[in-house]
Amino acid sequence: MGAHHATKLSGEDEQAVRRVVAAYETAWNRHDMKALGVLFTPDADWINIVGMHWTGQDEVQKAHEVYHRRMFATTDIRSTRVEVRGIGAGVAVAVVDLAVGDFKTPTGQEIKESRDRLSLTLVKRDGRWEIVHGHNTVIDPAAAPYDPIRGEKMREVGAP
Amino acid sequence: MGAHHATKLSGEDEQAVRRVVAAYETAWNRHDMKALGVLFTPDADWINIVGMHWTGQDEVQKAHEVYHRRMFATTDIRSTRVEVRGIGAGVAVAVVDLAVGDFKTPTGQEIKESRDRLSLTLVKRDGRWEIVHGHNTVIDPAAAPYDPIRGEKMREVGAP
Repeated sequence: MGAHHATKLSGEDEQAVRRVVAAYETAWNRHDMKALGVLFTPDADWINIVGMHWTGQDEVQKAHEVYHRRMFATTDIRSTRVEVRGIGAGVAVAVVDLAVGDFKTPTGQEIKESRDRLSLTLVKRDGRWEIVHGHNTVIDPAAAPYDPIRGEKMREVGAP
Repeated sequence: MGAHHATKLSGEDEQAVRRVVAAYETAWNRHDMKALGVLFTPDADWINIVGMHWTGQDEVQKAHEVYHRRMFATTDIRSTRVEVRGIGAGVAVAVVDLAVGDFKTPTGQEIKESRDRLSLTLVKRDGRWEIVHGHNTVIDPAAAPYDPIRGEKMREVGAP
């Protein structure tokens, strides 16, 4: 069980991780992509809600810049729940629920007040927590009742 | 840069991670949820393509079991690309592109030959690589051309 103890975050580390999550939200809402970019490691990857895969801090920042000019110029996000756990020495995962304001996709689709669930994997390098991997998914409100674990229609999908 | 060197996976570790990814695919295609469950750590989380969040190995296995009975009983997956990188001491991320066979959702929607992009975060504990976090997203083929980094219509979204 030694390995498991090693994964527990100190209170200080958990607060540092939560500050990075808060800084991501603040940078997004200011549409300040430089402030957003510095939260990532050079080897950071990002997978967005439609499955695009950006590799490296430069791509992650550039792609966010383009979309903030084009799609998210006035779109705010708000974290409604942040769960943080340590998974290894100096490595943590934050699961962040986000309320996302209206936006219009490049294909012309109007997206109204959606909710995302974002996984951020963070590493502590040289004493500083940074995002090394992000993966984001839209929460489908029509599917949620059929969640086999906590949906109210879980029995209809055959959950015991 | 010492910290960065420490994140590089040995060839042996990379192969071990790839074997876990292959074992996930095999267990899925045999619809053998016990074989799938043992690939996860006790503290593993999973976020699926509609944003459901399962916490702990028991929930991850049970939810997969229910959906394999109800939704994926004859649905195969096939990995078409697996990228593996080390992000910390004994921690790796695999990004897995999956071709997913037809299935029908509990709400009655028929999903035809979709493609997913899956992030698996793995940790080496007691010498064994296991999945500690999974996050999966459907690749939207209509959005892909507007990828600011590598879409063929990237200029239309204002990419330089």
